[in-house]
Amino acid sequence: MVSIGIDIGGTKMSAGVVTAAGEIVERSLQPSPILSARQAEDAIVEVVDRLSQRHRVDAVGVGAAGWVDSQQTTIRFSPHLAWRDEPIAPRLAQRVDRPVIVDNDANAAAWAEFNFGAGRGAQTMIMLTLGTGIGGAMVSDGRLFRGGFGMAGEWGHSAIVPGGQDCPCGSQGCWEQYASGHALARRAAVLAASGDLAAAGLADQPQPLTGAAVGRLALDGDPAATGLVAELGDWLGLGLANLAAGLDPEVFIIGGGLAQLGDLLLEPARAAYRRHLSGRGHRPWAVVRQASFGNDAGLIGAAALAQAAADRRDERPGEVTALWSREAG
Amino acid sequence: MVSIGIDIGGTKMSAGVVTAAGEIVERSLQPSPILSARQAEDAIVEVVDRLSQRHRVDAVGVGAAGWVDSQQTTIRFSPHLAWRDEPIAPRLAQRVDRPVIVDNDANAAAWAEFNFGAGRGAQTMIMLTLGTGIGGAMVSDGRLFRGGFGMAGEWGHSAIVPGGQDCPCGSQGCWEQYASGHALARRAAVLAASGDLAAAGLADQPQPLTGAAVGRLALDGDPAATGLVAELGDWLGLGLANLAAGLDPEVFIIGGGLAQLGDLLLEPARAAYRRHLSGRGHRPWAVVRQASFGNDAGLIGAAALAQAAADRRDERPGEVTALWSREAG
Repeated sequence: MVSIGIDIGGTKMSAGVVTAAGEIVERSLQPSPILSARQAEDAIVEVVDRLSQRHRVDAVGVGAAGWVDSQQTTIRFSPHLAWRDEPIAPRLAQRVDRPVIVDNDANAAAWAEFNFGAGRGAQTMIMLTLGTGIGGAMVSDGRLFRGGFGMAGEWGHSAIVPGGQDCPCGSQGCWEQYASGHALARRAAVLAASGDLAAAGLADQPQPLTGAAVGRLALDGDPAATGLVAELGDWLGLGLANLAAGLDPEVFIIGGGLAQLGDLLLEPARAAYRRHLSGRGHRPWAVVRQASFGNDAGLIGAAALAQAAADRRDERPGEVTALWSREAG
Repeated sequence: MVSIGIDIGGTKMSAGVVTAAGEIVERSLQPSPILSARQAEDAIVEVVDRLSQRHRVDAVGVGAAGWVDSQQTTIRFSPHLAWRDEPIAPRLAQRVDRPVIVDNDANAAAWAEFNFGAGRGAQTMIMLTLGTGIGGAMVSDGRLFRGGFGMAGEWGHSAIVPGGQDCPCGSQGCWEQYASGHALARRAAVLAASGDLAAAGLADQPQPLTGAAVGRLALDGDPAATGLVAELGDWLGLGLANLAAGLDPEVFIIGGGLAQLGDLLLEPARAAYRRHLSGRGHRPWAVVRQASFGNDAGLIGAAALAQAAADRRDERPGEVTALWSREAG
């Protein structure tokens, strides 16, 4: 038996058929259906129908950026997608004739890394997905930590610079404004426009610069881009030290697109984490580790969460009705 | 059957005999034994012997500021006390001939508020104890959250102002440097020394000013002191919004000495929390509530944690040997 995991981001929707061991046996990648909630649902139904033709699919999990309720049914708000308080899981379940769950994309990624990847065996692990923004999730005692209303993990929207950079979330100085692909692109644009000769490599790139483009330049050895990645690593490490003060995980897993920068990013982050950690000398260091599954973590984890929810339904059919719209009413 | 709870702070050691319902039936207050680890242990043994004469005491719990391991046996580091990596629980257990646990004082306070006070029924609650510094603890799904190494909850040592005020923890810009009794005293000293006529009430106080003295002035209606308390509330609320972004509790419980300021502190904190919360409009507001037990929360919770550990030992005698030094060897 296999499940389908779907990871819907701001630009791409990637889907895959995933085994119980977390292996992807078939996949599909297409532009993200961002125009309307209806368009997104149609795209999901289409890909599920297509992938189900050759596999016996037990359940479907959808991971999306944004605030999802703890019953895994409703997307309350998504920054890049058109969903607003949409109870999409039961609607989709009816259309694809299978149990469906939705969850936060970072929750899904963390679940994949904890079960099959870099976080295996951790008592408390924190996952950060560094893309345009910062996604976050925590697994503790073998369970995703969801908080009281299901919206935990948005550490990217903790203010770390009072009165700092404006954030689309409505606040100022959010961590995500300093340690994300968006931050990398913003800083690179400033440097490229400055006329600084050391930044010629940045200025030669197609404008507007993206975080991914700056990252590629850094991997190619461009000194200005490398410096900006190290600066981002500094902010990342400061935030890790903050998280360690409050939550004391043994392991941080760094995923998302920027994690492909590897030690160019992670070494400065580790150094800043060690410099800022409170109580250092009287406690062990947490491990700061690159994610195992790169951009596949979200879809693998969404599939695994769907499978787990379907298994719970089979064990206690009365309790998990929301999965299955025809039972729910 | 009753337990003894002991809360050892930087200036006072308060102990009490506590029932299973969280009621204190006898208490003892004395200066804190801060000179040496041996002196502290002698003081604990003395108070336990004295309180045990009139009560059938089942177990003893000690709450102390600092990092305590998750087995509740060893104080790794305490800022105000002389313990450094001291396995005090088994030593004390032998001397008082009863099971003994040690725990972080904020953990103990949170456990009291969750079981008997302002946090009852919460799925996820965060407790902050505002005294000289900021203590913190979280109860989620009915359990204290301890992190991977047992040292979770020190949100007071999250940096919220990069390059900000120096903190004795070795870092800079820690939240506790802006939202604690220490911060209140520091800001009051600046204002008192400024010659500002509006700060005459502060300048007339015995110097050096303490946070408690500033708080009393504010409760008496002094405008400068009231303003400083509101400023502290602003910083408190900013930090609550940060905690809500990552951990999404339904309820924050504010305890410790400064909580006696009530709405003078909590109203500005609630306003700042609502101003800074990420995703506001798409999520419920957490409740920000004054603690039920004031400075008694630590001793009540320490007693309840000791009772719970003793009960676990009775149920599974092989597992909790560290409580009981003679079994542990």
